[in-house]
Amino acid sequence: MRCIRYGMIGGGKDSFIGAVHRAAMRLDGGWSFVCGALSSTPEKSKASGVEAGLPAERAYGTWTEMIEAESGRDPADRMEAVVIVTPNDLHAAPAEAALRAGFHVVCDKPLCTTVEDAERLEGLARETGSVFAVTYNYSGYPMVRQARRMVLGGEIGPVRRVLVEYTQGWLATKLEETGQKQALWRTDPARAGAGALGDIGTHAEHLARYITGLEIGSVMADASSFVPGRGVEDDAGVLIRFKEKDGVSARGVLVATQIAPGRRNDLRISVFGETGTVEWHQETPESLVVSGLDGPTRVLHRGGDGLCAEARAATRLPPGHPEGFVGAFANIYRGVRSAIRRSPGADLDYPTIHDGVRGVRFIRACLDSARRGGAWVDPG
Amino acid sequence: MRCIRYGMIGGGKDSFIGAVHRAAMRLDGGWSFVCGALSSTPEKSKASGVEAGLPAERAYGTWTEMIEAESGRDPADRMEAVVIVTPNDLHAAPAEAALRAGFHVVCDKPLCTTVEDAERLEGLARETGSVFAVTYNYSGYPMVRQARRMVLGGEIGPVRRVLVEYTQGWLATKLEETGQKQALWRTDPARAGAGALGDIGTHAEHLARYITGLEIGSVMADASSFVPGRGVEDDAGVLIRFKEKDGVSARGVLVATQIAPGRRNDLRISVFGETGTVEWHQETPESLVVSGLDGPTRVLHRGGDGLCAEARAATRLPPGHPEGFVGAFANIYRGVRSAIRRSPGADLDYPTIHDGVRGVRFIRACLDSARRGGAWVDPG
Amino acid sequence: MRCIRYGMIGGGKDSFIGAVHRAAMRLDGGWSFVCGALSSTPEKSKASGVEAGLPAERAYGTWTEMIEAESGRDPADRMEAVVIVTPNDLHAAPAEAALRAGFHVVCDKPLCTTVEDAERLEGLARETGSVFAVTYNYSGYPMVRQARRMVLGGEIGPVRRVLVEYTQGWLATKLEETGQKQALWRTDPARAGAGALGDIGTHAEHLARYITGLEIGSVMADASSFVPGRGVEDDAGVLIRFKEKDGVSARGVLVATQIAPGRRNDLRISVFGETGTVEWHQETPESLVVSGLDGPTRVLHRGGDGLCAEARAATRLPPGHPEGFVGAFANIYRGVRSAIRRSPGADLDYPTIHDGVRGVRFIRACLDSARRGGAWVDPG
Amino acid sequence: MRCIRYGMIGGGKDSFIGAVHRAAMRLDGGWSFVCGALSSTPEKSKASGVEAGLPAERAYGTWTEMIEAESGRDPADRMEAVVIVTPNDLHAAPAEAALRAGFHVVCDKPLCTTVEDAERLEGLARETGSVFAVTYNYSGYPMVRQARRMVLGGEIGPVRRVLVEYTQGWLATKLEETGQKQALWRTDPARAGAGALGDIGTHAEHLARYITGLEIGSVMADASSFVPGRGVEDDAGVLIRFKEKDGVSARGVLVATQIAPGRRNDLRISVFGETGTVEWHQETPESLVVSGLDGPTRVLHRGGDGLCAEARAATRLPPGHPEGFVGAFANIYRGVRSAIRRSPGADLDYPTIHDGVRGVRFIRACLDSARRGGAWVDPG
Repeated sequence: MRCIRYGMIGGGKDSFIGAVHRAAMRLDGGWSFVCGALSSTPEKSKASGVEAGLPAERAYGTWTEMIEAESGRDPADRMEAVVIVTPNDLHAAPAEAALRAGFHVVCDKPLCTTVEDAERLEGLARETGSVFAVTYNYSGYPMVRQARRMVLGGEIGPVRRVLVEYTQGWLATKLEETGQKQALWRTDPARAGAGALGDIGTHAEHLARYITGLEIGSVMADASSFVPGRGVEDDAGVLIRFKEKDGVSARGVLVATQIAPGRRNDLRISVFGETGTVEWHQETPESLVVSGLDGPTRVLHRGGDGLCAEARAATRLPPGHPEGFVGAFANIYRGVRSAIRRSPGADLDYPTIHDGVRGVRFIRACLDSARRGGAWVDPG
Repeated sequence: MRCIRYGMIGGGKDSFIGAVHRAAMRLDGGWSFVCGALSSTPEKSKASGVEAGLPAERAYGTWTEMIEAESGRDPADRMEAVVIVTPNDLHAAPAEAALRAGFHVVCDKPLCTTVEDAERLEGLARETGSVFAVTYNYSGYPMVRQARRMVLGGEIGPVRRVLVEYTQGWLATKLEETGQKQALWRTDPARAGAGALGDIGTHAEHLARYITGLEIGSVMADASSFVPGRGVEDDAGVLIRFKEKDGVSARGVLVATQIAPGRRNDLRISVFGETGTVEWHQETPESLVVSGLDGPTRVLHRGGDGLCAEARAATRLPPGHPEGFVGAFANIYRGVRSAIRRSPGADLDYPTIHDGVRGVRFIRACLDSARRGGAWVDPG
Repeated sequence: MRCIRYGMIGGGKDSFIGAVHRAAMRLDGGWSFVCGALSSTPEKSKASGVEAGLPAERAYGTWTEMIEAESGRDPADRMEAVVIVTPNDLHAAPAEAALRAGFHVVCDKPLCTTVEDAERLEGLARETGSVFAVTYNYSGYPMVRQARRMVLGGEIGPVRRVLVEYTQGWLATKLEETGQKQALWRTDPARAGAGALGDIGTHAEHLARYITGLEIGSVMADASSFVPGRGVEDDAGVLIRFKEKDGVSARGVLVATQIAPGRRNDLRISVFGETGTVEWHQETPESLVVSGLDGPTRVLHRGGDGLCAEARAATRLPPGHPEGFVGAFANIYRGVRSAIRRSPGADLDYPTIHDGVRGVRFIRACLDSARRGGAWVDPG
Repeated sequence: MRCIRYGMIGGGKDSFIGAVHRAAMRLDGGWSFVCGALSSTPEKSKASGVEAGLPAERAYGTWTEMIEAESGRDPADRMEAVVIVTPNDLHAAPAEAALRAGFHVVCDKPLCTTVEDAERLEGLARETGSVFAVTYNYSGYPMVRQARRMVLGGEIGPVRRVLVEYTQGWLATKLEETGQKQALWRTDPARAGAGALGDIGTHAEHLARYITGLEIGSVMADASSFVPGRGVEDDAGVLIRFKEKDGVSARGVLVATQIAPGRRNDLRISVFGETGTVEWHQETPESLVVSGLDGPTRVLHRGGDGLCAEARAATRLPPGHPEGFVGAFANIYRGVRSAIRRSPGADLDYPTIHDGVRGVRFIRACLDSARRGGAWVDPG
């Protein structure tokens, strides 16, 4: 399979996630970084691009310039996909332009900051037929795929109760006041659109939907800004009613907080079904804990015997050789690559713009519920 | 200190918790089991009492008989305290009779099934001056006491977020249909008054209040009966707003479920403050995990150096020699004993009728909120 | 079953293990503490006895006095068993006297300080027909019994490799210089007979033999006294060759150290067979980890479904309600009690004087091997 | 820094470790894969090379051909370093040829199968001035580097006791009979030179030396072939006496076994010093457990505050985003790259041929000791 030539928007020096995307593509092995508009000012953008190894003429000053210039290049050489890793408020415009110019798009989560933008992008992607991925990267972990397969395959019976927590501590103080770049934009309502719910809550929501296959019927949220003067919520608790499936209306609790001292990147989920349970923790991602109604707890290991095809396909190393965050991220990119190349029979499992729209609706519904002081809200 | 002579109501053959109370008192060492009305019929009651080692004449047929007969005995010999371990609907009446007859009372949780009964008992206990304990036994664990001391002492700053879960799996199927005694009464609305919220949710609520020192301002609950035909809720998710303290209105999420396959008796709590975190898990009760804003996670060990006086006092063995459930329960009894004997300077830390009333109000508020389909309810 | 009347030798104020023995017997419930000679001087001994709740006339000044006086009492009232919890050098003499006077004996480990004494006691016990237990208490844990049942039942195939570690840190400094009583006698060659090997190594050796059913063929040991000026070894590593069984000569590694900072009472064992593995850790004693040649790791829980009769019989509480050290110790006492009362069909599983002799031989063999600078020594 | 052009010997289709080396170099980002002789026959070798993405003319049939052809290329274009990932018996010859032709060498462990070859290579590397790395990759983990820094910096005092275990289960059955390639050569004495000691024991030995800075004075080993008919040891227990340092002669126990069902790649180490302890486990590599003489256990997290410069430099992602095996491996390659490019002030921490020689001597000494039925052997 030929490498996919991609251009990146965002991902310059102070970016955290841009470098992760590039490492994931390097690990996947089927991607070629050909151009970029990595920073917010033309000079910095060009300098960042060259520093990241791009030829000077394809280290563009702005993303509009990049899309225009690349559109004019020889098809055998121009970029095929655009990877967008800017702050949330700068997702929709370049995504739209990229789609209109016929490129595939990979966009970091959340898809964008308004439901309206999200829906317009979804419609546009449908029209153009482009591949449009939203990097809910945690669904790339092999043991998450194993969990999904087991739940969808009925191994724990109809789902009744979901507990999903995403807790971090890095925003427990007013880090944005120190000028830290990540904190600055992520706590700025104009740039982030939302706080903990948008930054991490939506990962939790996607993970719950991914593993269970359930859709969210309504949410009841309580959101707070604990750090004085912060413009976005830094903590939220959400009750969830999932849509009925197999005659059961599952209930969920979702917690998203960034003011939890000592928590690093603690995404964990427990899914309780009628006859069993699956549990996974992102910080020890190599195992999946499975219980039945009785008998011993079973711990399944990545790479071990008896895992499903999806988990095996997402595995690069033997058991006991920890893979990790970049490996999972690379699995998302592998799915995107297969979709772009239309590989028959290949792994096409990646989060799509449909997931992206769902995520934006979830965030809005939670914020609505919280603002109304307690009301069940259907995300739509 | 002379042993306290106690009589037990309930705790016959099929009881789980009665035997635990007796073992806890044996381990504490300051209690003498002198009489009882252990079962629901006079014959069984007498037989159970003799089997449990009571002299035949003090193995009573009914609790009314016991209270009357013991009241007539020589004060140097008659029972001093009544331990009530019957199903929830049979707490209030014997407790009231015992108070009126001048006895101290130890009552299993929840205190009773209605707020009205709870408040009447509280008033009565105030009048009689009797000691009245409600066995929220998890507050007897040394590392829970350490957690409380650290939080109250400001070591993690004002509390912002509490996560408390109590999950069990034993009621994931309709166990009550098999005739299992524990399941029978605990899922019977008439006898239990409530389901998961009353059986275990109230433990979680007490633990959260005990460690944080916070009072609950309002609750928003979603409760379900997942097992078809069950008359009480077997699963609940609760959002909590605590009353303001130190200028912060902490938020909580409480989960109580008994339909979680693979979960045994999984009570766990994380308390996130402005500057740190404490976390405890009942199934590995010997340690307390403490985090600050930065630096390593610290794991404190029962019996280890540097623990507070309360944790040291609640400890019987050196570190690394696991104590456990009965040891924690015995610590509650030690507090009750000190209170009854009015030992100056002794450990008087035990859950009182005040906690019992709070628990009953919490259960009612959650059920109200759930019934109203989502509303913030002040437990009062 | 009538309570067994016991007298205790040792176990006064500064004793750690005496109080544990008494708590274990209280928890078991079938024992009555009727007399004692708890301390090393007559006055302290009497005072300690009264303080421990004995009637003044049976709080003896010395153990010789106790044995003589009790022998003269009415058989319906005199003690039936002697519990010896003195330092190691004071085990053999009272044990011998107790046997000669017709009493049953429970002796803390190690049985005594010389192989000669051990063998003489074993012969004497055989002659008198007395029950003689040596409290290798870790074999009382339910999940250790489950491990034994599984290994002896062939569930992991013939055993190939055993790893057993017992590590503590309390003697990492010269604690004996501070006057701490436990450190004083345990590091005194005259009173303890050996250091880490005798104090904890022998527990590890018994646990390995208990779970595997294997006998030790020879040992190769390296022992050190890391704390300057200490008269006994405080650290040892031992290679073990077990006697052939099922055509396989299993190999073992045993580590016993008391100079491991941060380790509390860390006894852990892994037994690897041809087709599976069992692993247990004393500080989290409620679970047993079991692996096969492939498939998931299984975690078995105390009190859970599917455990063997021996594990179930050793269990007092439902799963998830941690039992612990005293509960396991009480199980040893229950076995002893059944043996003394000759209960047909009862649990008779307790470590006998045979195990005690084996332990003393193991200690001697290791010290011999170490002294000889490396030689395989058969403990005999 | 310009990419380093490398050629690979071995690493074709059935290879496990070759692909890991290439992924590690991709993740490091400073390497360019320009040529190879990946398989054992010319055709397969060429086909493998093309499949791996090499241009046909640099997909060589044999390593001799590769070294000769590359030596003749323009210096600006020819390979600079040779990466050797063949079975153990095919390390020495290509390494020697590569050195003689002036190339740098990266060789998988163990360096080779005889001490004589090892020493000759060491002398040759000294003469040529080439960089020669041996991929003891576990020393690339950030938290291993933190452990080393803490121990060498005196934070746990002089080391007294080391416990290091490397246990795997994949060779518990006669896997070599199924034709599995990895099992075939690793259990073949002619190709592997040794069994568990050479394959994984030497990793454990290196890790212990790396973290403690101690040299091994003598070893006492017991080695077995548990699987009938296997020509190499599949299990070994080793007592170690380290050379004196700071007045203390530390003792070690090393276990290397490949017949442990349920163990995947379980390398773990505990280092006990006079005043503290560090502990690390490869399967959960993100944390380091540190204890002092008293107080809480501290768990340090990769990426967290307060880590040493070496650990920070070896880190690519924020805490809580698991890195893993390939990341650690890439850190080794980064050190090699810096050494080749002679970057001033850069991280030059990588295992050298000196470590490789030490490893081969250790394996020989253990096998000697075991063959002699128990003798302390100085590896030299």
